[in-house]
Amino acid sequence: MKSILQNHHLQALFQEFTLGIEKESQRVTPTGVLAKTNHPQLLGSRDYHPYLQTDFAESQMELITPITKSIVEAMQWLAALHEVSQRSLESDERLWPLSMPLQLPNAQEVRVAQLSDAKEVAYREHLINVYGNRKQLVSGIHLNVGFSSDFFQAVFHALNLDTEEERRAYQNQFYFKQAKNFLKYEWLLTYLFAATPTAPKGYEASLPEGQYRSIRNSSYGYTNLPDVHVDYTTLKTYRQSIETLVRTQQLQLEKELYETVRLRGITSVSQLEKESVRYLEFRSFDLNPYAPYGIQEDDLAFIILFTKWLAWIEKEATTEEIHDGKQRKQQVALQPATQRLPYEADALHILTSMREMVLDWESPEQARQLALLTRMEELVLHPEQTIAARMLHAQNPLEEGLTLAQSYYDLAWHEPFSLKGFRHLELSTQILLFDAIQKGVTVDILDASDQFLQLTFDGKTEFLKNGNMTSHDTVSSMLAMANKTVTKKLLAQAGIHVPQGYEAASAVQAKQLWTRVQGSPIVVKPKSTNYGLGISILKDNQSQEDFEEAVDIAFQDDDHILIEEFITGTEYRFFVLNGETQAVLLRKPANVIGDGTHTIAELVDAKNEDYRRGFGHQYPLTKIDKGAIESLTLKQQGYTWESLPEVDAVVFLRDNSNISTGGDSVDMTLDMHDSYKRIAEAAATALQTTITGVDLLINDLTQPATIEDHDRYGIIEANFNPAMMMHIYPAYGTGRRLTLAVLKLLFPTLPI
Amino acid sequence: MKSILQNHHLQALFQEFTLGIEKESQRVTPTGVLAKTNHPQLLGSRDYHPYLQTDFAESQMELITPITKSIVEAMQWLAALHEVSQRSLESDERLWPLSMPLQLPNAQEVRVAQLSDAKEVAYREHLINVYGNRKQLVSGIHLNVGFSSDFFQAVFHALNLDTEEERRAYQNQFYFKQAKNFLKYEWLLTYLFAATPTAPKGYEASLPEGQYRSIRNSSYGYTNLPDVHVDYTTLKTYRQSIETLVRTQQLQLEKELYETVRLRGITSVSQLEKESVRYLEFRSFDLNPYAPYGIQEDDLAFIILFTKWLAWIEKEATTEEIHDGKQRKQQVALQPATQRLPYEADALHILTSMREMVLDWESPEQARQLALLTRMEELVLHPEQTIAARMLHAQNPLEEGLTLAQSYYDLAWHEPFSLKGFRHLELSTQILLFDAIQKGVTVDILDASDQFLQLTFDGKTEFLKNGNMTSHDTVSSMLAMANKTVTKKLLAQAGIHVPQGYEAASAVQAKQLWTRVQGSPIVVKPKSTNYGLGISILKDNQSQEDFEEAVDIAFQDDDHILIEEFITGTEYRFFVLNGETQAVLLRKPANVIGDGTHTIAELVDAKNEDYRRGFGHQYPLTKIDKGAIESLTLKQQGYTWESLPEVDAVVFLRDNSNISTGGDSVDMTLDMHDSYKRIAEAAATALQTTITGVDLLINDLTQPATIEDHDRYGIIEANFNPAMMMHIYPAYGTGRRLTLAVLKLLFPTLPI
Repeated sequence: MKSILQNHHLQALFQEFTLGIEKESQRVTPTGVLAKTNHPQLLGSRDYHPYLQTDFAESQMELITPITKSIVEAMQWLAALHEVSQRSLESDERLWPLSMPLQLPNAQEVRVAQLSDAKEVAYREHLINVYGNRKQLVSGIHLNVGFSSDFFQAVFHALNLDTEEERRAYQNQFYFKQAKNFLKYEWLLTYLFAATPTAPKGYEASLPEGQYRSIRNSSYGYTNLPDVHVDYTTLKTYRQSIETLVRTQQLQLEKELYETVRLRGITSVSQLEKESVRYLEFRSFDLNPYAPYGIQEDDLAFIILFTKWLAWIEKEATTEEIHDGKQRKQQVALQPATQRLPYEADALHILTSMREMVLDWESPEQARQLALLTRMEELVLHPEQTIAARMLHAQNPLEEGLTLAQSYYDLAWHEPFSLKGFRHLELSTQILLFDAIQKGVTVDILDASDQFLQLTFDGKTEFLKNGNMTSHDTVSSMLAMANKTVTKKLLAQAGIHVPQGYEAASAVQAKQLWTRVQGSPIVVKPKSTNYGLGISILKDNQSQEDFEEAVDIAFQDDDHILIEEFITGTEYRFFVLNGETQAVLLRKPANVIGDGTHTIAELVDAKNEDYRRGFGHQYPLTKIDKGAIESLTLKQQGYTWESLPEVDAVVFLRDNSNISTGGDSVDMTLDMHDSYKRIAEAAATALQTTITGVDLLINDLTQPATIEDHDRYGIIEANFNPAMMMHIYPAYGTGRRLTLAVLKLLFPTLPI
Repeated sequence: MKSILQNHHLQALFQEFTLGIEKESQRVTPTGVLAKTNHPQLLGSRDYHPYLQTDFAESQMELITPITKSIVEAMQWLAALHEVSQRSLESDERLWPLSMPLQLPNAQEVRVAQLSDAKEVAYREHLINVYGNRKQLVSGIHLNVGFSSDFFQAVFHALNLDTEEERRAYQNQFYFKQAKNFLKYEWLLTYLFAATPTAPKGYEASLPEGQYRSIRNSSYGYTNLPDVHVDYTTLKTYRQSIETLVRTQQLQLEKELYETVRLRGITSVSQLEKESVRYLEFRSFDLNPYAPYGIQEDDLAFIILFTKWLAWIEKEATTEEIHDGKQRKQQVALQPATQRLPYEADALHILTSMREMVLDWESPEQARQLALLTRMEELVLHPEQTIAARMLHAQNPLEEGLTLAQSYYDLAWHEPFSLKGFRHLELSTQILLFDAIQKGVTVDILDASDQFLQLTFDGKTEFLKNGNMTSHDTVSSMLAMANKTVTKKLLAQAGIHVPQGYEAASAVQAKQLWTRVQGSPIVVKPKSTNYGLGISILKDNQSQEDFEEAVDIAFQDDDHILIEEFITGTEYRFFVLNGETQAVLLRKPANVIGDGTHTIAELVDAKNEDYRRGFGHQYPLTKIDKGAIESLTLKQQGYTWESLPEVDAVVFLRDNSNISTGGDSVDMTLDMHDSYKRIAEAAATALQTTITGVDLLINDLTQPATIEDHDRYGIIEANFNPAMMMHIYPAYGTGRRLTLAVLKLLFPTLPI
């Protein structure tokens, strides 16, 4: 391989990979007993769920990442799937972080996964008959690792492989070699990552009591009966030996073969001459109890590098070497974890060869990879540092799982508004992603920096941005909302009260409007800007000088300005989706409430301790700043930071009510009179929009109004990109899970 | 009125008005004979056309503006309707610019309008029986002028009129007074704006040969039979007298009453107690032959001011005064146009009173209005300056119409890519507006500065921006096209060839990609910018220094950059609408072709004389600049501005092919192999878009390709706001009327 890579400059392509992770975990009670409940109802249906399934037992969850192209991405998904699944458990359940259960149930208590496919249930019953029902309860991690198709295309090109047949034969042989080499060298991984040094009582009568390294990877683990043999001599003997095992019913199904590596991407080994292997499934990994998601990112990176090396070395393992490798693995697995590896020299030799490979390719990852190798060399020489050895420090290694399970559960619920793994996305997108994963919608992050997702369910594909801009809104409707003049015309056409006003393209023209607006309360503002810049409110509009100054200020920010009627009342945000008001929100400027004993500075600090307050797009609420604007706002009310406001006195730190400057969001969905919801919905209809945030000014939210009651309400604007987060996690009142409503809009057949 | 306005500050509202113009014009042959052809087929169907209809005769077009709120807007529409109608005529026809025809057809040659409504045809036949068929051929202008509803609301409020009945009675009486005063003072308008001083031979046997002022406004014009009288004493007598005329069949229909003012907005005078008059129709205006659109903007402004004055003065005309006014009008109309007005003192008194009104309100229009009044005072004292008098300078005033008709026709075809009246809009919007008006789609310009239109046809309302961003495209699709990473992912998912590439968020990360891209042709560019800024092309990518410099340059314009495969080939723009490629375009950098005798500077000047070349968004092509960039481009080819390039030598003035820097657009729709159109359409489908401009790089446009032939083509991007103008008016090749395709998309039932 090395020479092909060098001669054809394929080192970069060789390093590309596809990676999918499957991780099993038992649901348990707080005392570590396997859960007797059904698979959590919040997780949609296992008939279609792409990420969260059950394995052998009903209590045994299986977390399946999509195919990723980097360690980082795979770990992001693994983190997200842990968070979603743990936050979907019935309240007293936890995910068991060890491969070995704390205790084994009675035989009759083991419930196989209650899948709707009767054949799958029957297969699991068959497994109990053959293997018993205890080993099946041991959990692990499987890694699906492939080379990129670009890599194979380049190799085919380099080797002048022209026909489909030649190419398929090359690719299948390539993966077969890698698989064989894995079996030869697997003992090293067993040594490094083993994590089943002990078993619960009653696990296996024949297993002597004692300390091991990986019971799960030994003959006491989940293996086939001793008469099941696969012939690895050639791809053909491999295929034939498996076909025979199935034909003679030594295996009921091909998948009952529990070799630790499988050729994947083919429907069956019997198709090996017609289909291409696209990746290998490596099945040997115990759950690392010290990793919140069962595997450490560095260990995963090393394993990927190891699989690359298996393909990189020139030699292909012989059947003897495979036999020897399996024996070494058995030996290493059954050693006490603190014992030295009998094959230290071989192990260091492997790591040296891997180092050679890494130095041979120039990669942005090189430094990290060399550090990983150094760490593994250290582990080879220091068995006491391995996971299994560390587990043996505990009196009862399995009981340690109780503490770990609780701490990982707490981690999943820490800052529950966010989705760990995807914290680089904005909060609304994180929440939508959480809901999509929970309900079983397939997600593809098309562009993380642009909050652009692709969602697929039931054969239908949708893409959307910011969680709220979807295929259900039209370009013309969005552009209409982006233009205040157009918005007002369309709303006015529908009989809705909007501020009457004039648009001016020059200060001279604007100032001539004085005679028309004199005496009425007005707002003078730039036509396009959005952040409160350049806006003047003249409530008692009697001075021509004030008016002209306001015009000049507005023209500093735009080349067109609006001079509008000022509508009084309190502003509420109505989130309308598909013609229905889903949520109503009141925003209050940043404030604290006096208690008679604390200074304003102290009250702000106390309020800022709320875990929902932070900075940036990662928190539903924002910490109140103690800056110049806040100081000025206090001064205007006659306060300083050291003032002691009276009990219940409301002290404002800001004039503006934006959540992003520390304002409070208050859910008013049930307080708001329904008639205003009808008005907001009529506005959405007039603008031909499906998802919008309508800002209504209302004099009295308890008094009903019709569209014609122009003195009771007015609409200032409608937003095509309305924030969802503030409705989902308001400072006060009930959160409204708008992201679920969006999913239901996109996929009406999705059960929610 | 004056005191109400002053006491309640209603001067500004009083000045607001609604204005619609109806203008009749005969279609004639180049020799002035009334056209015998049918109404132009290009103008859709008169069954629904909102703007272009026929009046009495089939040859008599009626141009109807929508209701506007300003003189400027009304004139814009009038200009646009003239341009559309004249450019829709059969090639040898013209619009006759005078009220009086040049010659009268034989009685049997007059063809009444061939409307599909049989009742309308029968009514016109009835008119011939009663009035003959010649006076009907005389054309004029009707103005529909109302007060704003805001004005009436304010008045109702000021006068404490609470019930609907009180309000309706007030409003109807208000307009009735204005109408009566109009009849009293109409003679002044007759004097000022008369334009039918002579009639063609055979017009009316009883009319003595000679020179008049306004035959059309005299008893020789289109008036009712002498026994038809209306009683203006009260609104009730008015209603009853008209009801009697219809009941006794002196009039077949109410609309057969040819008074020069009508109460409008009611379905019939018999509804006057149940419905509100909303405006008055003033019917007395002769066509001004010296105005390309039949009326001058200043004259229109004066007439609006005059109608305001009719409502502003306290007095309401008595029946005697109306009778006297009508007699004065008859007298003034039948005077030779050069004679002095017998009521000069009264006229000046009216104008003085109007001046008082204007001074009484402060208005941005005040200076202009005072100037208008001064001009009218001058006209009162100088009859030789009136339109009718000026017409009499010609030997045969009617024959002058031949020259004028031709010059107005030429004006309509001047710069035919634009729509006069709406030249403040961008060209694509102007063209769409032209097509919409021509085909009978109702247009509302929601925001001219934002190119935002509302279109209505057959009960369906659509809004759109730039003529191409419509309700048929979704927000998610638009945002996908706005994001190059997302575009590429979606196209690649569909198997389409896009540049392979990497995205980097830092220069360090980007530079680490060197080993992956080394040796292949690549483009390094900012992720989001669009105007060619920060883009480096490394065709022979062997120097790491060059690569790193390109990375640094790209990061100057964005915080994310793309490093992409460079796809070779010529770039073509495919305009895809509703799954079909409508046009294919090649853009060439600004260039001239040598003729062996002219310098490059001379060749550029000659090319720039093309009437389609200009600056800004008003021209389909751009003049080639002779600036620094062009000089440098010449220098790089070894030329100066004074070089004499050989015959057929192509000299480029620019490297970039943008039309906005003088580039040539070349239509390639028929040259392009259809298979590439299928690929562009597949791209549109993958992006879920209805209207898009897809940029394909193609090696050989004559060789077929499938989506899988990645070496034959590549797609760089798709544009959600593709320019239509360059396809409609290319520099070379056939124009493609994309705006019609957009209209057909929005309104599938529209006959095009």
